[in-house]
Amino acid sequence: MAFGWIDEQAELRRRAGLVRTLRPRPAESPLLDLASNDYLGLARHSEVTEGAARASRTWGGGATGSRLVTGTTELHSELERELADFCGFEAALVLSSGYAANLAAVTALAPHGSLIVSDAGNHASLIDGCRLARGTTQVVPHSEPEAVRKALHTHEGTAVVVSDTVFSVDGDEAPLAEYAEACRERGAGLLVDDAHGLGVLGDGGRGAARAAGLAGADDVVVTVTLSKSLGSQGGAVLGPARVIEHLVNTARTFIFDTGLAPASAGAALAALRLLRREPERAARAGAVARELHARLTASGLEAVRPDAAVVSVRAPSPEKAVRWAAECRAAGLAVGCFRPPSVPDGISRLRLTARADLSEAEIERAVRVIGETRP
Amino acid sequence: MAFGWIDEQAELRRRAGLVRTLRPRPAESPLLDLASNDYLGLARHSEVTEGAARASRTWGGGATGSRLVTGTTELHSELERELADFCGFEAALVLSSGYAANLAAVTALAPHGSLIVSDAGNHASLIDGCRLARGTTQVVPHSEPEAVRKALHTHEGTAVVVSDTVFSVDGDEAPLAEYAEACRERGAGLLVDDAHGLGVLGDGGRGAARAAGLAGADDVVVTVTLSKSLGSQGGAVLGPARVIEHLVNTARTFIFDTGLAPASAGAALAALRLLRREPERAARAGAVARELHARLTASGLEAVRPDAAVVSVRAPSPEKAVRWAAECRAAGLAVGCFRPPSVPDGISRLRLTARADLSEAEIERAVRVIGETRP
Repeated sequence: MAFGWIDEQAELRRRAGLVRTLRPRPAESPLLDLASNDYLGLARHSEVTEGAARASRTWGGGATGSRLVTGTTELHSELERELADFCGFEAALVLSSGYAANLAAVTALAPHGSLIVSDAGNHASLIDGCRLARGTTQVVPHSEPEAVRKALHTHEGTAVVVSDTVFSVDGDEAPLAEYAEACRERGAGLLVDDAHGLGVLGDGGRGAARAAGLAGADDVVVTVTLSKSLGSQGGAVLGPARVIEHLVNTARTFIFDTGLAPASAGAALAALRLLRREPERAARAGAVARELHARLTASGLEAVRPDAAVVSVRAPSPEKAVRWAAECRAAGLAVGCFRPPSVPDGISRLRLTARADLSEAEIERAVRVIGETRP
Repeated sequence: MAFGWIDEQAELRRRAGLVRTLRPRPAESPLLDLASNDYLGLARHSEVTEGAARASRTWGGGATGSRLVTGTTELHSELERELADFCGFEAALVLSSGYAANLAAVTALAPHGSLIVSDAGNHASLIDGCRLARGTTQVVPHSEPEAVRKALHTHEGTAVVVSDTVFSVDGDEAPLAEYAEACRERGAGLLVDDAHGLGVLGDGGRGAARAAGLAGADDVVVTVTLSKSLGSQGGAVLGPARVIEHLVNTARTFIFDTGLAPASAGAALAALRLLRREPERAARAGAVARELHARLTASGLEAVRPDAAVVSVRAPSPEKAVRWAAECRAAGLAVGCFRPPSVPDGISRLRLTARADLSEAEIERAVRVIGETRP
């Protein structure tokens, strides 16, 4: 029977305790949220939700076509200008998701005959970008600039180094300045995904590239999401104008996709303006993460020191991680649970996100629940 | 210099007259729109835009996380239930775009060692899905069931046939019933992208699979977009519950992407309910397309007979197609212009979409302008 092989895989998953199920949440959840990527607590902010509502009424429920046909509104252009300006880049291009932005950037910047040097800790979307690109990919050990340097020296001609700025599993930051140095020695480009850096790192949340002094450089391209710190949906590529023009002309996930919905563009623009006005939100997210980490390690848990707003706590096994997360939930706390095959190193974790709007009492409660439920 | 090679490609594009540029549109365009994919004219319908606004206020500007963590709201589940029910499938899974839905479906249904038989006219997102999948792809000539049959006979084991239902370039329909027959002879699965069929084909717009008697079959999986007939953004996979569960557990563009923004889910749900209440909109889109085709061919233009709501008119060359579209625009008519490398056969076209809400006077005006500006 067609698709019969699916049942065997399902049975293997069940036996391994690796079944994933969707858990629809109500509009007003009683849970304390340390699981979402809403780092600045803006997804429910009235300026953001009103930005979405207004955009939908003004521009319609959808963009109605691909960006090159009818899917570019003046709202999209406004968002692109303000995003580029905020992060310190010449130009920006908005796509329907961060995943699509990464597929677009990697494939467009790694043509046939080129080399892609890819950090082993990269997000699935960068990995899929490498697999779709016509260039050849060399995966290098996680966060080792020397390995990047060595890989670049094996290749003559066009090359691009691809990395997350903040890795989503452990929340550690990539050695961006060293990666840039290795690139410049060989005239290679640097492409980094700042999904977890925008809104948290850099002056007022202007991102990891800004923090590393790389914003606006002619050999640096950054992708961001609009769905994390900006509380909306979508992704963007930031870089030199000629790189953006190149993407407009060649990137398949840009050309053949419907433009981002006006509501999402409007929500992201409202969040961006709010962040500009209240830059202290960015620093607060980082501070909450460091406080969470300090308290968790003080209570004897193994947590990775956070470079941004993600705090990763190790669990002894996938089963225990799942049970731990479930017991947190039963105690009123939503935490993320990462386990194989979502984690490259096979280590299961609780994943906490440090929202800027968490109160001291909420932080205390979270640490208490995690400690009391530990396996 | 890093990214220096981009300038050479840009120069080649300029010389070939193939430069694409974004043209931001205002909220109230004076142009008559025959370029968007808003087949039912719902993107600006107040029920749809209010659906988006209400969802944003109730659920927030974004889904805040991946669907398996915090990104599934009760609104997403409601949309999935109603979509599956409307189209006649057991289950549905909503993703952030039709592109993401196609990548998810193809990669999840074509494991290592399997065969993918792919129609040569398929959309870029299906092609990229084939390239990302672990199975081996065999591309077969466009709309030839015998070629599909032959390809399936070369392979023992798991196989899936992948096709658009309505091809976006020429608007022609795939021989779905014949494809299904060829699949069943070999126990292969059939995966079809109904982006241009949902809302136009089948009883009340229930789609091409329904029209072909394939809805709900245990060997058929359908992908749709929420961004065309439903006037919103997003995509969905429809199929047997076990296929959907398999995607939840394995499809990377589902697992590692932020959930669809509530506003887009709300807009799509409102459009779906509207279509259920006013099923005549679907038939009207097809009727407008046939009328456009009849009048254009009567005036001596070479247009492909439309199977759904896309009417394709041949142009003598890429340059003339661009000029033709520009002259239409100058005369107040927005039309699509497809040219290399977006068209698989290298033939440039004007691409018209027949919205259900076009009036007789608007159809007449469109035909007149296209005729008067012909090269």
